[in-house]
Formats: sequence, structure tokens, C-alpha cells
Amino acid sequence: MADLVAYPMNGGDGLYSYSKNSNFQRKAIDAGKELIKEAVSEKLDIKSFSSSNTFRVTDLGCSVGPNTFHAVQNIVDAVEQKYQSQGHNSQLPEFQVFFSDHISNDFNALFQSLPPDRRYYATGVPGSFYSRLFPKAFLHFAYSSYALQCLSKVPEEVVDMNSPAWNKGRIHYSKSADQVVKAYTTQYAKDMECFLNARAQEIVCGGLMAFVVPGRPNGISHTEVFVNTAKELFGSCLMDMAKKGIISEEKVDCFNIPQYIASLEEVEAIVKANGYFSVEIMENLTQEKPPPKVFAIGVRSGMEGMIRKHFGDEIMDELFDSFGKKLEESSSVLESKKSVSLFVLLKRRATE
Amino acid sequence: MADLVAYPMNGGDGLYSYSKNSNFQRKAIDAGKELIKEAVSEKLDIKSFSSSNTFRVTDLGCSVGPNTFHAVQNIVDAVEQKYQSQGHNSQLPEFQVFFSDHISNDFNALFQSLPPDRRYYATGVPGSFYSRLFPKAFLHFAYSSYALQCLSKVPEEVVDMNSPAWNKGRIHYSKSADQVVKAYTTQYAKDMECFLNARAQEIVCGGLMAFVVPGRPNGISHTEVFVNTAKELFGSCLMDMAKKGIISEEKVDCFNIPQYIASLEEVEAIVKANGYFSVEIMENLTQEKPPPKVFAIGVRSGMEGMIRKHFGDEIMDELFDSFGKKLEESSSVLESKKSVSLFVLLKRRATE
Repeated sequence: MADLVAYPMNGGDGLYSYSKNSNFQRKAIDAGKELIKEAVSEKLDIKSFSSSNTFRVTDLGCSVGPNTFHAVQNIVDAVEQKYQSQGHNSQLPEFQVFFSDHISNDFNALFQSLPPDRRYYATGVPGSFYSRLFPKAFLHFAYSSYALQCLSKVPEEVVDMNSPAWNKGRIHYSKSADQVVKAYTTQYAKDMECFLNARAQEIVCGGLMAFVVPGRPNGISHTEVFVNTAKELFGSCLMDMAKKGIISEEKVDCFNIPQYIASLEEVEAIVKANGYFSVEIMENLTQEKPPPKVFAIGVRSGMEGMIRKHFGDEIMDELFDSFGKKLEESSSVLESKKSVSLFVLLKRRATE
Repeated sequence: MADLVAYPMNGGDGLYSYSKNSNFQRKAIDAGKELIKEAVSEKLDIKSFSSSNTFRVTDLGCSVGPNTFHAVQNIVDAVEQKYQSQGHNSQLPEFQVFFSDHISNDFNALFQSLPPDRRYYATGVPGSFYSRLFPKAFLHFAYSSYALQCLSKVPEEVVDMNSPAWNKGRIHYSKSADQVVKAYTTQYAKDMECFLNARAQEIVCGGLMAFVVPGRPNGISHTEVFVNTAKELFGSCLMDMAKKGIISEEKVDCFNIPQYIASLEEVEAIVKANGYFSVEIMENLTQEKPPPKVFAIGVRSGMEGMIRKHFGDEIMDELFDSFGKKLEESSSVLESKKSVSLFVLLKRRATE
């Protein structure tokens, strides 16, 4: 559960800050690290970029670090290695890295923690990755980690009490009626289409795009996914508070988490229908399940802004305490759930 | 008196914020506006950029807006007009604007106030413009307004009590001994050399660079310059407080303002010695003198961070009150002083 629609990760470096609580994501980055090296080594055709002596990388949904710094350094290292292995030692490119996230991201914190010994020119790009962020044919490598599960918005039907897709008493879709699931699936497909269309314009032909997201193994139902079960538990904590009269039930009814956990099959179908990219690598990475307390703090660091905005400051501590307890009580159930990350590597097709 | 070494303008939009107190600079931007239009129309050779269909602009020392937004919009408009006037209507370039300032600049405030109807891709670039910020041959137009008077650091000798250039009892050079003036002049020349060398790498051949700075008319002494006189008065307020025992005299002795007010003659000599750029336009723009109170608030919005860091929070209100009063008392003296801005337009020479 990383970045959410227009609600930034917690900035700074306090107890609940994203920078102190993003180890969970860090492990997926490490798992993807080798795949990216492999991809650059085998799939990147540096000859086709030779006209430009700058190699441009973006991290979309970069948040505040340090994960983004490790990730982009890994890409820079891999590209340098590729140039060297092909005897282009004397003409190593200059690197320019574009750290991108919502306009509400803490770019000040990001810039202030930039690695002093970086070998790239660093820039920040504010905006949603569901629309254009860069000029045409500008990027050589686009990367995104734990961000593309976030939808551009909550599907409208699920918070509309007059819709058959109204998701009453729940904040997510995994245990909901088919109409709710369909509303989420449709929103995800629409958003991915926007994402791919925007990137297709921005990435040079032959350029690569890698993304890592929490995922669902093919053929496994939504209810069997660890992060979905955790969200159901989180929703039940909110409903408990509503039953105690601490918050109103209506407030819960009109709150839904705009995240969708897709499978590789779904991603592949969307990419193929879009047509601008070829699928080069697709893998399920086994995702370690963090201990309940660590997970609760991790969720807090990612979702605090959004929850606070909707429900107010007062409930935060009680809510996350009860969530932590519920995670512990349900640990054997959670243990049986699937926790994978999807790693997807795409290449921008040459335009006919 | 704009941006200072690693001390950002006051962020946000409070009483002393830079965004609320930068009208003084705004007027110079307006005066430069027509010159930039003229420069783009007459000096920009768009044919030489035709291989790239993106036009890249940077504002170096952009602070937090809104001045930077007006300035870059003016450049974008002028370039579009040039394309249109040459019949390139169908192939207008995409624009990418790089807002750059010290790493401590409030980029969050900058990004959050970006004009929603902008016709360019916006990015932020943290770092000092005295070193490289961009890859080679990347920029088409570099702009800087009220920033290049800021030195990269206080010349060391002027705060060294063992140096003949020790600037005891003063915070600026205009009424000081020749050695002090020389230390400032030397630092300015060194910094400008670094600035020009960095930009020479980053700007494409034929690309333009325009900058506006508070200046000194040729042949006029440092003491006859309005902003220098104002700085002397500001220094005397600090000395008054030292005499009253509110701050220590040593604290004042080791505080100097790292700004230099150059003349067009000096700028021209440095640009020619550097060799990478041709001088296309050089003009003194008459700079309106703001009323004392407005000026005092303007200085506060620009220098508060630096003063606070050196002298502590407590003295701020008293210091700026007494500065405001002193400006009013000295209004007839100030009235007689010269207030100009230098407008300089350079073109990156083709490399032999």
C-alpha cells in the first residue's frame, strides 16, 4: 500500500514517516534489481540511442526516498555496465534522473536527501503519471515501484448509494459484490490505458519501462491476496468504530481505497490491447509478509494523509492500534494468503 | 536583494513571504520582457534546433513564484510567436521548463502554485547554478532574474580578522577599504566564470541566455548605488544593536552579505574573457525605487533566513523596524542614489 491518489506519503523522518517505514517495499526493489540488470543487459539496444549522449531515467511515484535512490542507482549502474561491456567506455552517457510524484509529494524532503555522490543530474517532476509529464520521445527508461496499484480515483459507482455497485460497509472490493469488483477492474483498465498512452509518447522507441506492484497470482481470487485481506481488516476496524459511534457509518460508506491488485494476466491483456509496448519480462516475485506491527506502521505511513482528511485527526491512534491488534489476531489467516509482487518489463515498439 | 547563498526566500504566502513581496523584482521582469521578445525574434535561430522538437527553458534562481511563472511564460510566448511568424505553425515545439534554485528553496510551494493552464512540462532542478545542473547541449534558453548578484560564498578574507581585507564593523563592501572591494570583485569574477563555464556546456550552440541583476551604471562608484547604500544602512542597524549590547560586535564582524553589484563593463569583460558566449544585448534598465517600508519588507522576505541563522530569532522584528525607520530618515539620500538593473543577453557561440 504505497502512494494514494493525491495523498502523499508521510514526509520527514518521524516514527510514521515513509522514509523510515518503506523497508517492505525495499525488499521488492531488491528482488527486481537483478531483473532490471538482466533487462538492461539483454533488452536495451544502446545503439538506437546513440544520437543523444544523455540517458534519461524517471521514477514514477518516487515518494521521498531512500528507495527511489537505490532503484535509480541500480538502473544507472546497469546502463553504465552495458556501455562498458560493449566497449563504449570512452563515451559513457551523462545521466539525467527525473523523480516524479504527485504535486503534493514532499519534494523538499526528496531533494534534501539526494545522495551527494550521485552521478546523475537530478530533477523533480510534479504531476500524475496518468497524464503526460514529459515531452515526446524524451525518456530512455521509465521505472515505477509500488505506485501503479493506485487508481486515479475511487470508481464513482462504489460510493454512490443509488448504484448497484454501491460498496456499503466496505472500503475495498475483494469481498464485495461482482458489480463492485467490476467497477474497480474497469477503473484499473482505464487508468492503465492512460498510463501506457502517456508513456508511449514519452519513451523513445526501444526504450524500456519496468514496474513493480503488489499483485495477485494468476487464477487466484481477490480474497486470497494478503494485502486485500489486510484492507478488509482495516475496513472492519473502521466499521467497529462506526458501531461504537466514534465515526458515522455514512463516513465509512463513502470511503473506498482507490487501489487495485492486478494479476499478470490482466496486465498482459491491457498491454497487448494498447499495442505500443512489447512485453519483455513478466514475473511474480514472492513478497515477504512483514510482521503485523511493522505492517500496520507501514500502512499508516502510506495512508495517514488520506484517512486523516476523510475521518479527522482524532481517530488516528485508536484506528491504527485496533488495526495492529486485528492483524495479530488474524495472523494465521493472513499467513495463508498470497503475497506476491508483479515485475513487468516492457519495451516501446518502433512506430511503423 | 534576492536569493542568498543557500538561504532560500521565505516560502509560503505569509506577510513576509517572497511570493507576497517580490513586486520590486516584478517590475524589472516587465522591463526585460520586451527585450526578451526582441531577442527571441531577432537573435534566436530556430532552424539550428530543428532536430529536437522540444524547446527547453530554465529559470536559474527561480525562487517560489509568481515572478518565475510570468518570466517563463514570456519566453514561451516569444518562441511560439517566432515559430508562427516563420510559418512553422504546424510544428510548434513542445516546451519543457526547468525551475531551478538552491536545494533549500521551497519547491513544494513552487510546484503547488504552478499555473494550471501552462503549456509546458514543468520540472524542478535543485542545486547551485555555479556548478553543472544539466547534461551537455540540453538547454535552448537559460534565464535568471535577480539571482546572479549572489556570490557562491562570502569572500573569506573579509571575515578573517588577520587579513588586510577584514571588513570590521561592516557587512558589505561599498564604503570599505580597497582590499575589501577587491575581495568581493575577485569572488564575483570567479563565480561568473564558473557560471559561464557550466552554462556553456549545457546550452546548445546558438542557444540564448538572458539575465537581469541589480546593477551599477558604468563609471559610477559603489557608494552611489541605491541597494549598496541600503545595505550600509542595514549594517549600521546591526552595529547599533551591537552598541546597545543586544548582539555582539564580533557577530557583526563575521557577517557579510555575499552579494556583488556589477556594472555592464565588468560583465562584458568577464563574458569576453570566458569566450563561450557572444554579447547580443546589454542595457541598463531604470529600476524604480520602492517606498522605504515596502523595501524593508522586501529585504526581509529575501534575507530573513540568513539573518536568523546568524543572529538568532529574537532580533528580527527590532532589526527590521529600525531598518525601516533608517530608510525613511535617509530617504533624501537614497533618492539621489542610482537604481538600475542590468539586462544582458548572450548567445552560445558555435564550437570551432
